[in-house]
Amino acid sequence: MKIDIKEMDEYLVKLLRTVGDNLVVDSAKDKSVDTKSSRIDLVTNFDKSTEKWLVGEIKKKYPDSTIVSEEGYGDVVNDMSGLVFFVDPIDGTMNFVKRRDDFASMIGVYLDGKPFLGAIIDVVKSEIYHGGPDYGIFRNEEEVTSPKNQSLPEGLVDISWPMVMADKFNSQAVVKKSSGLRIYGSAGIIFEHLIFGREVLYMSYLAPWDLAAGRVLCESLGLEVATIDDSPVNMLKSQVVIVGTKKVISEVLRTVKK
Amino acid sequence: MKIDIKEMDEYLVKLLRTVGDNLVVDSAKDKSVDTKSSRIDLVTNFDKSTEKWLVGEIKKKYPDSTIVSEEGYGDVVNDMSGLVFFVDPIDGTMNFVKRRDDFASMIGVYLDGKPFLGAIIDVVKSEIYHGGPDYGIFRNEEEVTSPKNQSLPEGLVDISWPMVMADKFNSQAVVKKSSGLRIYGSAGIIFEHLIFGREVLYMSYLAPWDLAAGRVLCESLGLEVATIDDSPVNMLKSQVVIVGTKKVISEVLRTVKK
Repeated sequence: MKIDIKEMDEYLVKLLRTVGDNLVVDSAKDKSVDTKSSRIDLVTNFDKSTEKWLVGEIKKKYPDSTIVSEEGYGDVVNDMSGLVFFVDPIDGTMNFVKRRDDFASMIGVYLDGKPFLGAIIDVVKSEIYHGGPDYGIFRNEEEVTSPKNQSLPEGLVDISWPMVMADKFNSQAVVKKSSGLRIYGSAGIIFEHLIFGREVLYMSYLAPWDLAAGRVLCESLGLEVATIDDSPVNMLKSQVVIVGTKKVISEVLRTVKK
Repeated sequence: MKIDIKEMDEYLVKLLRTVGDNLVVDSAKDKSVDTKSSRIDLVTNFDKSTEKWLVGEIKKKYPDSTIVSEEGYGDVVNDMSGLVFFVDPIDGTMNFVKRRDDFASMIGVYLDGKPFLGAIIDVVKSEIYHGGPDYGIFRNEEEVTSPKNQSLPEGLVDISWPMVMADKFNSQAVVKKSSGLRIYGSAGIIFEHLIFGREVLYMSYLAPWDLAAGRVLCESLGLEVATIDDSPVNMLKSQVVIVGTKKVISEVLRTVKK
């Protein structure tokens, strides 16, 4: 499949710019909020309308692609061949509803199973982080350079709160070796911090749409994405993922207990 | 003591505007970083120079006041009579160093032991939250109204990570009743979230300068500030403090175990 990577990157940025402009207004509106798997797993009318729109636009432009998405407007995807889009219309829905800050919208693109392009918008900051391994990574128009390969004691870590409260995988030992724990509650926002070296580890149970865009951006900048048992990352299932600098991932894999 | 409250509020805002303009530049510079009580309790040359400047300016304008401050440029204060200033030059020094975001500078003013004025700047956002019980509370120029009296299940809570990891005071039960845990790592930034109803509880071991300004702002807006054992708040010692909506404080006091 021959794809114009620049054209696609610009298209992703255009889509997320529109989504961001809408969501920043929507975050102040009354929302219709439903729960999914639990009392604190939220979905709003805006998650659904945003995803529906994104899926429609992607299908118009790339009719031969398949789409994996959070709220069900995408396809049933059983293999990673060809062009696969991952869409998370609102990442950090709880933050969107309660904080009205620190939420994102994300699109990841994989070609024959390989990271191809990713785009994340920090909606309230109005900044888009985008690009891929063969294209470079950008914050809006400005190219981003790789973050320093910091060690665990040098940096802040971000771990999902159910995991760290239960000390799953020995995660509290990881925190104690670090500079401290932060919990921002949105994968997209945490990927932003990782890209700029402002946190050094993210550890959480992630669905494909939570991980796809961030994985592209992080790996393109020399960060590592691994699973908790160091098995290959599978983009078609949910799994416990660790993302961070090479030094940190190596230290975390020595520290965690499956 | 006769004090022009409007003049003092404007003075606090002017001081923090200068501090904010400097710190946003300083955060990108190389810093001289030392540790205090532990490996992760940081102080930089900018904490010290900022406090020294603030203490000097306050002493010039209010020579009869006493000043309680973090880095040692203030006075030894043994009682709360008269006009007492509390200065935290950089609140969230770890964030200042690692995240370059989510840090604050804060000044709290008490008159004969009573909350009088408070001012907090979110440095990166360049927003100042300021005012007092007899004056009103403002975000920059715009008056702030009281947040909704949300219940614990309705809101996000922010608890210091050593406390929640060790389940001190039964704090994990508090998290489980809430909408979720966030950890932002700066008292000033968390007070900002509380003021706007974007988090509903802050629970942490706080020094006087961590608490002083936020207590003024929060109490002025109908939020509650209590100690973990419901004893009176003592502004001259460090203590475990809970700050939140009336509903949440009542629920938390029923849930925590001393």
